[in-house]
Amino acid sequence: MSERLSVDDLRYHTVSFLSDYGRGDEFVGVVHSVIRAICPAVTVLDLTHDIPPYDVRAGGLALARSAQYLCPGVVVAVVDPGVGSSRRAVAVEVGEGQSVLVGPDNGLLAPAVALVGGATRAVALTNLDYHLPPMGGPLFDGRDVFAPVAAHLCLGVPLEELGEEIDPAGLLPGVMPIAREEDGSLVAEVLWVDRYGNAQLNVAPDELDAVGTHFELHLSGRRHSARRARHFAEITPGAVGLVTDSYGLVALAADRASAAEDLGIGPGDEVRLTPLDGDAADAPPEIPVRLGRAGTGGPA
Amino acid sequence: MSERLSVDDLRYHTVSFLSDYGRGDEFVGVVHSVIRAICPAVTVLDLTHDIPPYDVRAGGLALARSAQYLCPGVVVAVVDPGVGSSRRAVAVEVGEGQSVLVGPDNGLLAPAVALVGGATRAVALTNLDYHLPPMGGPLFDGRDVFAPVAAHLCLGVPLEELGEEIDPAGLLPGVMPIAREEDGSLVAEVLWVDRYGNAQLNVAPDELDAVGTHFELHLSGRRHSARRARHFAEITPGAVGLVTDSYGLVALAADRASAAEDLGIGPGDEVRLTPLDGDAADAPPEIPVRLGRAGTGGPA
Amino acid sequence: MSERLSVDDLRYHTVSFLSDYGRGDEFVGVVHSVIRAICPAVTVLDLTHDIPPYDVRAGGLALARSAQYLCPGVVVAVVDPGVGSSRRAVAVEVGEGQSVLVGPDNGLLAPAVALVGGATRAVALTNLDYHLPPMGGPLFDGRDVFAPVAAHLCLGVPLEELGEEIDPAGLLPGVMPIAREEDGSLVAEVLWVDRYGNAQLNVAPDELDAVGTHFELHLSGRRHSARRARHFAEITPGAVGLVTDSYGLVALAADRASAAEDLGIGPGDEVRLTPLDGDAADAPPEIPVRLGRAGTGGPA
Repeated sequence: MSERLSVDDLRYHTVSFLSDYGRGDEFVGVVHSVIRAICPAVTVLDLTHDIPPYDVRAGGLALARSAQYLCPGVVVAVVDPGVGSSRRAVAVEVGEGQSVLVGPDNGLLAPAVALVGGATRAVALTNLDYHLPPMGGPLFDGRDVFAPVAAHLCLGVPLEELGEEIDPAGLLPGVMPIAREEDGSLVAEVLWVDRYGNAQLNVAPDELDAVGTHFELHLSGRRHSARRARHFAEITPGAVGLVTDSYGLVALAADRASAAEDLGIGPGDEVRLTPLDGDAADAPPEIPVRLGRAGTGGPA
Repeated sequence: MSERLSVDDLRYHTVSFLSDYGRGDEFVGVVHSVIRAICPAVTVLDLTHDIPPYDVRAGGLALARSAQYLCPGVVVAVVDPGVGSSRRAVAVEVGEGQSVLVGPDNGLLAPAVALVGGATRAVALTNLDYHLPPMGGPLFDGRDVFAPVAAHLCLGVPLEELGEEIDPAGLLPGVMPIAREEDGSLVAEVLWVDRYGNAQLNVAPDELDAVGTHFELHLSGRRHSARRARHFAEITPGAVGLVTDSYGLVALAADRASAAEDLGIGPGDEVRLTPLDGDAADAPPEIPVRLGRAGTGGPA
Repeated sequence: MSERLSVDDLRYHTVSFLSDYGRGDEFVGVVHSVIRAICPAVTVLDLTHDIPPYDVRAGGLALARSAQYLCPGVVVAVVDPGVGSSRRAVAVEVGEGQSVLVGPDNGLLAPAVALVGGATRAVALTNLDYHLPPMGGPLFDGRDVFAPVAAHLCLGVPLEELGEEIDPAGLLPGVMPIAREEDGSLVAEVLWVDRYGNAQLNVAPDELDAVGTHFELHLSGRRHSARRARHFAEITPGAVGLVTDSYGLVALAADRASAAEDLGIGPGDEVRLTPLDGDAADAPPEIPVRLGRAGTGGPA
């Protein structure tokens, strides 16, 4: 263990930690232990460890949602299906050193880095002096690479000590789907379903403002209608509403119920929103029955 | 971030935190981040975040079970189906300022407040200077209201700064079911089923002492028998016992098995306990076979 | 609460905590609270609390896997089916006082103690002055015995103050299954299945080195083949490989898939590994079809 330093001697005071490790195994606890053994005065703060295994996109979005609320410091993020392959391990500096994100170079860090203004420097973690010796296969980089690197950053080890500098422009970008307009409809995608069943879309409120307040939703063949609402409480019981969620994006929501379950949708699913306001509202999707002319009955 | 204060400069050193946020999303981590960004020296201690979504009663009971073991300080509790509606956000002082409970005014805090002697003061959290600006809809009060308020309380902001004082007597009470006697039976309710399947009842041991040691349980039509036991190990394998649990209440328990699963019961279910001791024990539910008198054989 | 001590006045700075308490109840949070109320300056670090209820073996293995990475200090481990029975509560010193493990004397601590060099001293926790008064039955020793004992050890209370010294040789040993050779095969056992579905065996890589690189697996009647691999990425998609895992043991693994699910195996299951290299490889399990001799066709 390093000699005991007070928290005031540290370069960074907080390590924020996100992974797909789950809580059933001792992986998370061991990463905490390794960081604390090297840098006892730092606080390690868990964001979540229940990212679905190997789901880099879900991890990147969770990190991005958290980004603006994180304490300045080191961020360790590990969702790493390519561990042991040729993917690089990296440390990415943002805000001219205000924070450093540590993890695999597989797009996981990219959305958060972009949100806080982009990378100012980056290194590949090639200096083994700051890693633990792996015990077997190179399969637990959280413990053997990312944790000790994060702890040494907190102790003040300069970024460039940790490995060769790389061009931040060469980091693997994250993939963030963009909603598109098509035939007067907005074609969106579910980014995330939270514990309460709210389904966040890749749509900003002002994108909807331009289109309307009452929509038909097309979901892989099924149709529903949804109105915009300011609060959950404004949503009619049993109905689905379009609210601006606590991250500033549009979400499909229900009042004290799971909209995602009611609609049968999950992350990555396409949702097509067709406005029913104005002219559109005069032409509902059902074929209108015209009264008074013989011979036009039946399925028309 | 506030200027760095040592832990000795703080008014409160601990924030205890309970919610129905789960751990699958980053909600809990973000609340930790917000508190730490405002008050870096405080320790945030998680009670549980797996209260069933929107289950105010379960959250209130968990908080009450914890109450006497909590470190003095701030308690943040969030189970909040009415977020965004007109329900008030409140801070409730207990013990003349020894601790402050922060959360929605929906009955969640009430059982714990009552257990520690009642509220000495309360405020509605109406001063927006101590909140974060909400990003979208007002849906994440844990992050935007309760966390920053808790952090400012730790920094020494006086309670009355946080909003208008309200009469503690006007806070929404919790609902705690009371067991009742009926026809010589005790009609109880399951308060809680723990991870091991022990089903805590709203019954104190001395309420049973007066009645007996051997009971017939009536559970929505089904019947079982249960004897009182001091330890799990005293319960016959396969049987259900009535133990005094580690919170001082009576629980239905099995030895290394789930009594709740065996009995098919959960929180809120009614359990009727009829004593089988003394006279009652002489009249077991089965019809006794009388020996020695001709003509009374057959299925008796 | 004790008078406030700085972290530098403590005998131990870290309590590492493992249990089968789960996270759904407030048990873990209450144990944290009790420790912090007695010793505010200590850091409590959670290893995992999702050991299957009462599974002493799984808890002991998780603790052993963590052992070499833990910060020096106190370890509290609670998987305790015999709570309330005559099993002893103990504190076991290792490394001449570098660390102390606290928990039930039921074999849970034994594998970790053995891994770090064995016990140097041990006491039975019989001095009630360092326990909390139990509220009901003696059912929550984590809160009432192990937490306050751990906190007092951190404050500097000498081990021998906590109860009568006992002979470490009399502590209940853990049971660690040993792989055996049988008819040229290695008969192993699944120790652990991690979140990703990797199934760790009680086999060291050099035990396999002596036997071969390509194996037939016999699993309760079913057969599979598996080749050794250095990385997940070396395993053919859809196949199962034998990797050296991050703890230095052999594991059955698949690339971005759950080997345990694919094979239908779990902890405690037997796996027989028969080498298919060399001579064995010339006799594949399928009966070869011999061409050119009439009368030998058909199912042979």
